[in-house]
Amino acid sequence: MNMNFLMPTELIMGKDCVVNNASVFSRYGKKAMLVTGCNSAKQNGSQEDVLKALNLQNVDYVIFDKIMANPTIDIVYEGAAFARENKVDFIIGIGGGSPMDAAKGIALLAAQEISQENLFSGIYENSVLPMIFIPTTSGTGSEVTKYSILTNDAAQTKTSIASPVIFPKVAMIDAKYTESVNLTTTINTAIDALSHSVEGMLCNKANPISNLLAKDAIRKIAECFTQLQEGSITSESREKLIYASALGGIVISQTGTTAVHAMGYSLTYFKHVDHGRANGLLLGEFLEFVEIKKPELVHEILECMNLSSVSEYKNIMAKLLGKKELITQEEIEQYANIAMKAKNIPNSVVVPEQEDLIHIFQKSFQ
Amino acid sequence: MNMNFLMPTELIMGKDCVVNNASVFSRYGKKAMLVTGCNSAKQNGSQEDVLKALNLQNVDYVIFDKIMANPTIDIVYEGAAFARENKVDFIIGIGGGSPMDAAKGIALLAAQEISQENLFSGIYENSVLPMIFIPTTSGTGSEVTKYSILTNDAAQTKTSIASPVIFPKVAMIDAKYTESVNLTTTINTAIDALSHSVEGMLCNKANPISNLLAKDAIRKIAECFTQLQEGSITSESREKLIYASALGGIVISQTGTTAVHAMGYSLTYFKHVDHGRANGLLLGEFLEFVEIKKPELVHEILECMNLSSVSEYKNIMAKLLGKKELITQEEIEQYANIAMKAKNIPNSVVVPEQEDLIHIFQKSFQ
Repeated sequence: MNMNFLMPTELIMGKDCVVNNASVFSRYGKKAMLVTGCNSAKQNGSQEDVLKALNLQNVDYVIFDKIMANPTIDIVYEGAAFARENKVDFIIGIGGGSPMDAAKGIALLAAQEISQENLFSGIYENSVLPMIFIPTTSGTGSEVTKYSILTNDAAQTKTSIASPVIFPKVAMIDAKYTESVNLTTTINTAIDALSHSVEGMLCNKANPISNLLAKDAIRKIAECFTQLQEGSITSESREKLIYASALGGIVISQTGTTAVHAMGYSLTYFKHVDHGRANGLLLGEFLEFVEIKKPELVHEILECMNLSSVSEYKNIMAKLLGKKELITQEEIEQYANIAMKAKNIPNSVVVPEQEDLIHIFQKSFQ
Repeated sequence: MNMNFLMPTELIMGKDCVVNNASVFSRYGKKAMLVTGCNSAKQNGSQEDVLKALNLQNVDYVIFDKIMANPTIDIVYEGAAFARENKVDFIIGIGGGSPMDAAKGIALLAAQEISQENLFSGIYENSVLPMIFIPTTSGTGSEVTKYSILTNDAAQTKTSIASPVIFPKVAMIDAKYTESVNLTTTINTAIDALSHSVEGMLCNKANPISNLLAKDAIRKIAECFTQLQEGSITSESREKLIYASALGGIVISQTGTTAVHAMGYSLTYFKHVDHGRANGLLLGEFLEFVEIKKPELVHEILECMNLSSVSEYKNIMAKLLGKKELITQEEIEQYANIAMKAKNIPNSVVVPEQEDLIHIFQKSFQ
């Protein structure tokens, strides 16, 4: 039984946990920088709660609310410069994966000089601004991961800064912020979280603890399939989804992801397909690919969803994802070529060749 | 779904993990202090492996091998003075619960001044010497907990320093060091680990993640019941037991323990009953006490062991523990009186009164 497990982020979960745990915000200094997008944190109440908590604790703050979907390298350097100028002590990331991933890059670059060419090197000093993260979607799990995934134009894909240095100090998780998330995004993010846990079980670094967490996440998301299909999601289901999303984040911090993520990044980069949806479009065929050599493992995953075959799983995904994008053979070959260079390709228990990726793309979009 | 979860200790588990991860020992400074007992770390190969790793990394060291079973407050202050004199940068704790718990106290007291009267106050500064722990028994889980449990003569019991400050940085877990542990200790420590996970599920701070871990620990220990009874324990079972012990540690760091631990401390303090055995003698009757008000919860626990009643569980414990100690009614009343003052009494989902403790003691020893 070989295992490595590291999840230093403190999890605080529950209704009104931000305001109820206001003292957490005074742990890391006198001046905070909020990193968020331009809209949702203001609409879903999360920013208001954070400001209330900061005021309660007399913590000063500045706001950097310029983070776009699929954040760029440029915005991260800009945010880091803003953090230095304002001499902030710590970072509060609020939002979905994009603001949280950008906030990690900002926290890292505000504390140490890293050139753009070394940004994805994985070799960093130990200094980083402390981070408190508040997720407002239930997909990324970024609040508990060591990953910051940025749009990398040089490589024409998304690339991750991956280092234990960027684990947030605290994740404050309140499902109420996800109540206003629309159905499409709720589905896409739920599938992202599902994909993290399923892929985590398919990675060769999967271990007994990551598998326990992954299975519980898969069970909880599967319990929401019917509501996601019907478009009426209860608060209880939103709690299950945000819990599962955090578990998925813990899982991939141990295991990494697989070819599904590597392939999905091209769909996002070139075709602007939402990240979770991209994973969802590919995961069924990847499961079928793995099933040939590792049938027990795939059935262990299906069992968590109360399913007995991959085709049952694909049917559910088809209903949730609706009409698929059009994608040409030329595009498929380009994307497979890019994906083969990704760090996550050799991660999985069955490592695909380039022709396998082409085949998975073809079957996923036929 | 309210939940707090914190487990910042990095887990590294597997055969030869100490030597294979020698670089971990150079992370925290140039001079280490080994804290251990006088014998077992030398006999089971753990100290030799640590010294090999330190030499590989050119890390200097001193050895403090005076830790006795149920370590005293005095030995912890003595160790801290030794750490200061020798200007060590970090602490390596090797052994069962006693050396590891003492090592935590030493790491804390070497970094900050705390008077004996404030030692158990729970209020400490944030400074502590970094700790790397190597368990050589499969019971305490101290390698991943925030507890240091010391013999407290003033209170005539064992009392814990409990603080996130004393989480070890790294736990290196190799079941091979437990191969030489004798059968009685293997049984007692396995029951200690079982008790941690069962009690964790009975605590009002139990949460979905702690329960996932607790259930897996209970399953793994129950899979070893037959071998423990027969006295022939395979290496595979030793791996299950040390894994379960670590899970139990993670669990109680979230949940705390229950009256079982509070009551058991008197058996250890006054009658020198081994800690794990003490828990084992009491846990069955405590389960029966909880079952009256929370039958589903107790059955969820029993299911992990493939058992359908508490009496089946008690039969297994009776076989494992053998002849019980003699204990008088007067002693029972004294112990119940002391136990009622413990912090862990109000922790459980069904809080016992003093007369309940008396009843549990009586039935446990009849």
